[in-house]
Amino acid sequence: MAREILFNAFAMNCVGHQSPGLWRHPDDRTTDYTSLAYWADLARLLERGKFDALFLADVLGAYDVYGGTPDAALRGGVQVPVNDPMMLVSAMALVTDHLGFGVTANLSYEPPYVFARRLSTLDHLTKGRIGWNIVTGYLDSAARGMGESRQRGHDDRYDVADEFLAVVYKLWQESWDDDAVAADKARGVYADPALVHRVTHRGAHYDVDAIHLAEPSPQRTPVLFQAGSSSKGRDFAARHAECVFVSGPSAKVIAPRVAAIRAAALPYGRGREAIKIFSMMTVIIGVTEAEAQTKLVAQRALASPEGGLVLMSGWTGVDFSQFDLDDEVRHVENDAGRTAMDNITRADPGRTWTVREVAQHVALGGIGPLIVGTPSQVADALEAWVDETDVDGFNLAFTIMPGSFADIVDYLVPELQRRGRYKRAYREGSLRHKLFQDGPRLKVPHPAVRRDKIGIKQEQDAETVTA
Amino acid sequence: MAREILFNAFAMNCVGHQSPGLWRHPDDRTTDYTSLAYWADLARLLERGKFDALFLADVLGAYDVYGGTPDAALRGGVQVPVNDPMMLVSAMALVTDHLGFGVTANLSYEPPYVFARRLSTLDHLTKGRIGWNIVTGYLDSAARGMGESRQRGHDDRYDVADEFLAVVYKLWQESWDDDAVAADKARGVYADPALVHRVTHRGAHYDVDAIHLAEPSPQRTPVLFQAGSSSKGRDFAARHAECVFVSGPSAKVIAPRVAAIRAAALPYGRGREAIKIFSMMTVIIGVTEAEAQTKLVAQRALASPEGGLVLMSGWTGVDFSQFDLDDEVRHVENDAGRTAMDNITRADPGRTWTVREVAQHVALGGIGPLIVGTPSQVADALEAWVDETDVDGFNLAFTIMPGSFADIVDYLVPELQRRGRYKRAYREGSLRHKLFQDGPRLKVPHPAVRRDKIGIKQEQDAETVTA
Repeated sequence: MAREILFNAFAMNCVGHQSPGLWRHPDDRTTDYTSLAYWADLARLLERGKFDALFLADVLGAYDVYGGTPDAALRGGVQVPVNDPMMLVSAMALVTDHLGFGVTANLSYEPPYVFARRLSTLDHLTKGRIGWNIVTGYLDSAARGMGESRQRGHDDRYDVADEFLAVVYKLWQESWDDDAVAADKARGVYADPALVHRVTHRGAHYDVDAIHLAEPSPQRTPVLFQAGSSSKGRDFAARHAECVFVSGPSAKVIAPRVAAIRAAALPYGRGREAIKIFSMMTVIIGVTEAEAQTKLVAQRALASPEGGLVLMSGWTGVDFSQFDLDDEVRHVENDAGRTAMDNITRADPGRTWTVREVAQHVALGGIGPLIVGTPSQVADALEAWVDETDVDGFNLAFTIMPGSFADIVDYLVPELQRRGRYKRAYREGSLRHKLFQDGPRLKVPHPAVRRDKIGIKQEQDAETVTA
Repeated sequence: MAREILFNAFAMNCVGHQSPGLWRHPDDRTTDYTSLAYWADLARLLERGKFDALFLADVLGAYDVYGGTPDAALRGGVQVPVNDPMMLVSAMALVTDHLGFGVTANLSYEPPYVFARRLSTLDHLTKGRIGWNIVTGYLDSAARGMGESRQRGHDDRYDVADEFLAVVYKLWQESWDDDAVAADKARGVYADPALVHRVTHRGAHYDVDAIHLAEPSPQRTPVLFQAGSSSKGRDFAARHAECVFVSGPSAKVIAPRVAAIRAAALPYGRGREAIKIFSMMTVIIGVTEAEAQTKLVAQRALASPEGGLVLMSGWTGVDFSQFDLDDEVRHVENDAGRTAMDNITRADPGRTWTVREVAQHVALGGIGPLIVGTPSQVADALEAWVDETDVDGFNLAFTIMPGSFADIVDYLVPELQRRGRYKRAYREGSLRHKLFQDGPRLKVPHPAVRRDKIGIKQEQDAETVTA
């Protein structure tokens, strides 16, 4: 039987997200992003639709590649201003029981000792529903906020990331044994000190000599998400990521990337079921084709091409303000730029794209593809995409909030349920349980888990070890 | 007419707080501290009692001065494990409308650019109900978690704190003008880039060159709390703090400290109304005297003297495990130690204290005084304390959670209301409004506000400027 398709909702703690200009749409509520009621409503909606998780993107800088200033981003409300995503989680967790929460955190600017406690706290408060999108950053503007003239080189960032993970893994997995907390009122023993271990780490980038401050949370290590698409990024994902985001313009383009990620994970002992892959996707749904097209026309009229280029400039490092809108898009020479551009243009290699067309595309859902149609048509397209690419599900961007997700919940989810391609009820347990039918803890051969360490008892029946 | 008395509830994201051992009490729920329902219930209770704020303490290390290891702290659940307090705020804000939230954050381990956004986010989400307890840290164990062999010297820490504040003030107050956000759907302008300013700071400890990522929140700068009692700490408070915590064993000891803080603030143009002073206090209330005494006996039987010494050792830097419980307490030579000890012993300078007596005292509410009695007796004591010391209110520690606060809400608050010494309704507006009847923004002569900067329009009618 065909696998159930997983759904992440993709959003950000800002006006809009990947649909610049659409905050002007009469049905859009994203200008309420500073309100807790807005986020609580979204969480309830997504749980009603049995979404696996709400995924919160983040940047720590303004998009200022376009024109060399943040002016266009500010004017258009293009992911700036942008608030801290982690501060939203506990309110949304309070009004839901099952929805997972993926939070993006840039490890370049967080001390691992403090960061590990923050994530442990969220894993406790959500009862094991937290995921972390491991990001190393791509905006020089963020580095300047931290007193550096620019961010580290791309490959260096992954070396720092490897060491950062080594530290937080030790804090999460090895500092407190499973049975360290007795909470024994009769004996007056809260924790057994012999079962709490100091983590010592002396490395190139980080030094730690302390116990983890948080007792073991349901998942210990949050579910690890990653989106790297470079070769270094892919190897990083192959070793660490439990969920990987991919983005591409067609199933044909995505399929070999998915295969490459799965192949890269195999030498680390991580088979087909070890990594869930989510494809970026935007859908506009109407009960009839005509209604869907009417929505598309209305949204396209408000989508901001300049906003699209602000985003593309940030993602690629290429200042698109220097081109005429009618210019043909040329090849972009740097890694990030090539990837972002390929994601749009490779769907049809024969076609020529103008800057305007790229801008319009990005302004409705970012670099992922856009599917417009009836619930049945969209379900057909998603099923085919999954079957052709071997992805596990979708990271669904919105164009209108909450309208895009409400349409998915009210129309697309029931259609997929009828087809046996979407869960009819949440599984019990942690986010890791829900995604992998196994949990709540990581197991060998994931590098977070070292079988030679005491305290990780549930892992000791596992087969292989990698460090 | 006598002033209304302000109430802060003092708690921490851990088992117990300042009543080690009492997590064993049958009515205590603090072992549920990892649950959101626990915190939501507490917030609702405090709002029912019209508390001004819930104040969350924090430490970033384990108490390991006692015996030179964290073993006793772990065994007794003495403020370790301890989770991140900021992660609790949005859930509690969702279920309340008026309660303020004071969060402790150690600036030594937070980059100001990231920290400023985090607090702005909380100020947005709470609609202006956030306060920040500025802490520079006192535990070497926290420094070791960050890869330093020990924390900075005491005075150095205040120099770093001054620079940290200079940076976050610029980000909060000066980066976005009041009218920068247009959110104008017709013109398609979210923010006016001409009214958003890059903050540049080059200092001894911090460099920043970036716009603040968050648009102006209701209060811009959170309400600033501080608890420094050293001379450097007092000067810091005199310049920056809007709320100051003091702790002492008697009104006689507290009164000159309060006068000294108010006197120190005057040269900075900050008069009697600029700083609210909260006195640490623990109360055990019974409907009858007998009931109060019964509660006291039951609680004292479960309070852990060793836990009290673990806390005292951490606060003073003196390892109390080296003494016999019957030893007389001698003079402590360092600043922090002298202050903590004075807070206990100076109530009655003639009296000799043994280590055991100190331990028992600290184990029921920390170094603040303990008042036990009927609602009327406790109200008498608090009124007298306020009138003799010129403090504005109390930072109320609990011994039993939620019992201590439930008794205050159900018995003490109505008694004080009858006497005209406690609000019958919350004031509308931000936490700053509620505390100062003025707000939501800071005004000159507070050093966060510079009248020569554009954009802080509501300040321009003020009288004096200090920078």
